[in-house]
Amino acid sequence: MERDQIIKRIDELGNSIMKEIDNMESPRMSIPQRNLNNIKFNKAKNLLELGDKKSSRSFMNIAHSKKFMQTVLIAGKCKELVERNKTASIRELYYQLKHAITDSKENTFDDQSESDPLIVDLETMLRTLREELHLKADDKGTLIGNIVIEDSGDFIDCSRLGRSGLSIPSIVEHYKFHDVKADYVLVIETGAMFDRLVEEKYQQKNNCIMVSTKGQAARGCRRLVHRLNHDLGLPVIMFSDGDPWGYYIYSVMKAGSMALAHESRRLGTPQMKFVGMTMDDIDTYDLQKVTEKLKDIDKKRISELLRYPWFQKKEWVKQLNLMSEKGLRIEQQALASKSLEFVAEEYLPQKIEKSQLLP
Amino acid sequence: MERDQIIKRIDELGNSIMKEIDNMESPRMSIPQRNLNNIKFNKAKNLLELGDKKSSRSFMNIAHSKKFMQTVLIAGKCKELVERNKTASIRELYYQLKHAITDSKENTFDDQSESDPLIVDLETMLRTLREELHLKADDKGTLIGNIVIEDSGDFIDCSRLGRSGLSIPSIVEHYKFHDVKADYVLVIETGAMFDRLVEEKYQQKNNCIMVSTKGQAARGCRRLVHRLNHDLGLPVIMFSDGDPWGYYIYSVMKAGSMALAHESRRLGTPQMKFVGMTMDDIDTYDLQKVTEKLKDIDKKRISELLRYPWFQKKEWVKQLNLMSEKGLRIEQQALASKSLEFVAEEYLPQKIEKSQLLP
Repeated sequence: MERDQIIKRIDELGNSIMKEIDNMESPRMSIPQRNLNNIKFNKAKNLLELGDKKSSRSFMNIAHSKKFMQTVLIAGKCKELVERNKTASIRELYYQLKHAITDSKENTFDDQSESDPLIVDLETMLRTLREELHLKADDKGTLIGNIVIEDSGDFIDCSRLGRSGLSIPSIVEHYKFHDVKADYVLVIETGAMFDRLVEEKYQQKNNCIMVSTKGQAARGCRRLVHRLNHDLGLPVIMFSDGDPWGYYIYSVMKAGSMALAHESRRLGTPQMKFVGMTMDDIDTYDLQKVTEKLKDIDKKRISELLRYPWFQKKEWVKQLNLMSEKGLRIEQQALASKSLEFVAEEYLPQKIEKSQLLP
Repeated sequence: MERDQIIKRIDELGNSIMKEIDNMESPRMSIPQRNLNNIKFNKAKNLLELGDKKSSRSFMNIAHSKKFMQTVLIAGKCKELVERNKTASIRELYYQLKHAITDSKENTFDDQSESDPLIVDLETMLRTLREELHLKADDKGTLIGNIVIEDSGDFIDCSRLGRSGLSIPSIVEHYKFHDVKADYVLVIETGAMFDRLVEEKYQQKNNCIMVSTKGQAARGCRRLVHRLNHDLGLPVIMFSDGDPWGYYIYSVMKAGSMALAHESRRLGTPQMKFVGMTMDDIDTYDLQKVTEKLKDIDKKRISELLRYPWFQKKEWVKQLNLMSEKGLRIEQQALASKSLEFVAEEYLPQKIEKSQLLP
C-alpha cells in the first residue's frame, strides 16, 4: 500500500473519533476479534484468516478508557512515522510514547506489554501490515542466489555475496527485484544447512535463491518469501528438520499463524511445497542410525498438529502418524552421515527433479 | 594459520600415538586443562588466558579409552576436512562420526554432547581455532559500512548493501579486506538499534563500519571484529544496553570468555572501548523516566561481574556500583524517548568526539 493510503486510513479513524466527540457521543473503535473463535482456516486458499467478529472499544467505558487513549497515541505516532518516512522498532515506539502527555507525571504506558497488543489492534483495524505503519519487529534470516535486489538506491547482486549472503531486514516493503534468473526459492530451516548448501554451491548449480529462516521465520523473512512467490511467480520449496517443530515452521510460512491470522494473506505463501525431511526418508535413504527418539514434548506437539485444520491433508496426517509410530525424528543435518555432499548432490536435486514434494 | 600447518599439527598428534603403539606403550594425549583453576586474566594484555596445567588422556586407562578413541576419530575427520578444503558444522561432524567404525553396530558417539567438548580438547591441544580445523558453530550478526570484503572470489562493497547489510558467516578466515576507508568500527548489541542507525545513515555520516551482534556475539562475529582491529588497525567501539548483560557481552568481545579462554587471543579485541549506555547517561541525558527497575536476576549478575578480575577497573566498578545503588538499568532504545534521531545525531557522535569512552 502507498504511504498516502495508510495516512488516509489513520486520518479516517481520527476523523470518526472527532465526529463522535463533536456529537457529544462516547468515541468508539471497532476492532476485529483475534481470539480462536474468530480464526478460520480457509481451505480453498490454504490460509488462516480472521473472521468478521468485532469488539467495540469505547472511551467512556472506564474499563476501556486507558486502552482507548493508548491506541490513539499509537495511531498518532504511526501517522507521524509514515509522514516523516521513518520506521521504529516496537520497543522504540513504546519508549517514544511512555510519557507522551505533557504536564503529566503519569506514565501513558507502564510496560511494552501494554503497547504491543494495541499495535496489533491498530494494524487489524486499519487492515494494514505492521510494516506499512512503519513499525518493525526483530530481523533474522539470510538470502543468497541469482537475483538483484534494489534496496534504498543500491543494486545488490545476491549471486555475488561470497559465502556470506544478504542479511534480511525486518522491513522488505521497499525491496525492488531485478534480473531474476532463478528458477525457484529454497527455504531452509537451519543456518548450518544453509551454510552446507552454500559451500556446495547449490544455489549456483541448481539456479535457485536460498533463504535461511534460522528457526521460526521472522516477519521480514516471511514477507520476503511471500513477495518472491507472489510478485515474481517463483515456486517456493521448504526444507526443514523432520520433527513437529520443523513441520510447524513450514505451516506458518505457508498458511500463516494463529497470532497473526489477520496478516496471513500478506505473510503466507500458500503455494509453497515441502521437500523434507519426511518420515519416509528414513527408510528410503537408510538413515535409521541417525534418527533421534521422540521426547514427551515432541509427542505432545505432534498431537497438537494433528488437531490443526491446516494439517488435515492425507500426506501430512500420514507423516505425523508415521512419526508417532516410529517414535523417531530426523534432522536435516543427519544427511551428513551419508557424506557432506549427499544433501546437495543427491537428496535435494533428486527429490525436486522427481517432484517428490508434500503439499 | 595455513592449511598445511594445521595438517602438520594433526599429523604430529597421530604420529606420536603411532610411535607409542610401536613401542608397546599406552598411547597418550596431553590436553590443556580448561577448568577455572587454569584460567587466568592477563591484566597487561587484557585477555583471559589458559594456564599451563595439563591433563593426560591414556588409551589403556579404561576410564579414558572411549574418549581417547573419540578424540582420534575427530582429529581424523578434521584432517580430512582440511585436506578436502571442506567445512562442517559441529552437528554434521557428530553425524559423520556417529557410526564411524565399520562392521560394528556400536555407536561411537551417542550424543553431540560427547563430541562437542572433545572438539574443544582438540583445538586446545593443537593450539588452533576451531575454524582452522574447518569446523563451524552457528552464525549470527550483520555488517554494513565503508569496506570491500573479498569473499570466495566476490568483491562485496559493504557500503552498497542498502539497509540490509552483509550476513556474517560462522567462518571469516577467508575474508580479505580491500578499500578500507572507514575510520572505526561500531559494534551494536541489538538488531533494532543497528536498524535505527542504518536508517539514520550513521555509518555514512560518521564514516564507520557497523556490526550488529544481536545479543551475545557468535564466534564468527567476534573473529571478524578481532580481524578488523588486529589486521586493519581500526579502533573498535561497543554500544550496548546499560545492564549487566550488555556489559558482559562487551567484556567477552574485548577480553574473551571463560569457556573459550584458549581462543581469547584470536577472538578477543583488547583495544576495544565502550561508549554506552552508562549509568551516568541517565542523569546526563535526563533519562530517569525511561529506566527499568533491576530484577533479582540482574542484581545477582552484577555481583558476579564485580567478582570477575577483568571488571576490576575503577570505571567499571563505578558503573556496576552505581547500577546497584540506583537499582536501575537502561536500554539503548530508551534514547528514542528524546527523539528517534537523537542517538545518531547527538548521543553517539558527541560521546565519541569527546572520547567519553570506558576502557
